[in-house]
Amino acid sequence: MPRRPILPPTVAARLVIGDVPAAIPALLERLSGGGGTLRTLSTVRRSPAGTDRAAETVEIEVEVEGLDEAGLIAAIEATPGVISHRLTRSLDRIFGKRVIVIGGGAQVAQVALGAVSEADRHNLRGERISVDTIALVGEEAIAAAVRAVADLPRARLLVLAGSIMGGDITRAARELREQGIPIIALNMVGSISEVADLVVSDPVQAGTMAVMAIADTATFDLERQRGRRY
Amino acid sequence: MPRRPILPPTVAARLVIGDVPAAIPALLERLSGGGGTLRTLSTVRRSPAGTDRAAETVEIEVEVEGLDEAGLIAAIEATPGVISHRLTRSLDRIFGKRVIVIGGGAQVAQVALGAVSEADRHNLRGERISVDTIALVGEEAIAAAVRAVADLPRARLLVLAGSIMGGDITRAARELREQGIPIIALNMVGSISEVADLVVSDPVQAGTMAVMAIADTATFDLERQRGRRY
Repeated sequence: MPRRPILPPTVAARLVIGDVPAAIPALLERLSGGGGTLRTLSTVRRSPAGTDRAAETVEIEVEVEGLDEAGLIAAIEATPGVISHRLTRSLDRIFGKRVIVIGGGAQVAQVALGAVSEADRHNLRGERISVDTIALVGEEAIAAAVRAVADLPRARLLVLAGSIMGGDITRAARELREQGIPIIALNMVGSISEVADLVVSDPVQAGTMAVMAIADTATFDLERQRGRRY
Repeated sequence: MPRRPILPPTVAARLVIGDVPAAIPALLERLSGGGGTLRTLSTVRRSPAGTDRAAETVEIEVEVEGLDEAGLIAAIEATPGVISHRLTRSLDRIFGKRVIVIGGGAQVAQVALGAVSEADRHNLRGERISVDTIALVGEEAIAAAVRAVADLPRARLLVLAGSIMGGDITRAARELREQGIPIIALNMVGSISEVADLVVSDPVQAGTMAVMAIADTATFDLERQRGRRY
């Protein structure tokens, strides 16, 4: 399985611009003109026309690689239609690496308990590890969520927490591993345990191991545990 | 406090493009030419030069408003330098609204327990609610995380779970509320309880109430509880 590489640092800014299709392309042109590459863009909120401004505006957050903070500000200030802007901190410096937990509510909650407690211990030593969860039911919904983990920024490991998973969930899990995201599964009914990197019976321990596997401050190596059951 | 408006639906696609600064501007030009507005862009992964391809490539996920799926595909296919592409589902249709929990590990874990269990019940009835957490220590780190919640896509409510919070955390909480994100705080030492929308002593109940407050399938109205303590 290819390991998902760690991306180089970015600089980030929040800006308010007119909410027209041409606004973001105009900004991007200036960013790329200075050698910057857009890595993330989020729409934070929108102000409808007629409230506090004459026209619709939108507040966006951008993370850019290949520019320093001065270069980012210069590119933004050269863009027509920018109403206001300020530098922010990249989300990876705030929320860090993400463990994603998907499955049934009771088990997701127990995995989260273990993972949050373990993340706390590593975050105290300078890591930034978030634990993000969604409780879902049904093969289709869970398989779609597993596939979508690849689209989540900063997602580094998935824990599947349930009592029975197979079929399309197993196919989705295989696809996700090919994208470089390892999977820990609870010991459960179904074919999912054949594709998981590690199978763990206790959900609290599964959450703890998930955080240990992605923490730079831990000595746990998932590669050496591949295919094992606890 | 302004309520954060729900954004209109988007269409989403995953594409592999050459990793050069001009690649994303070229795509954006086609999207906006068709009347589409970029709402989200995430960098999913990068393939370095010399592995499976001759040049560096990057895989990105985009969510676009103002186009239908056919329009999005047409714009992507008209863009030079796109190596492959496929339609995906918008993350808001998969992971939905997010409750963010920030604070000390022990309390974050208990809030998550309540929130995940309650989200499970609403997700069974057709909602999509995620519970995302980070365990942090220190005024500076927590204040920065509170401010950054405004940048998290789909974040709808913040729970502050700790034993003492004030100072710059309280200022950050006030700023976040002005951005339309309500805050539930545990009953704790410090000025945070003066700015929170609701103060709850039991962390499991705080998590439960947080999910109820953003669920369309619940009848709990945070507006009517503002300033109360439980």
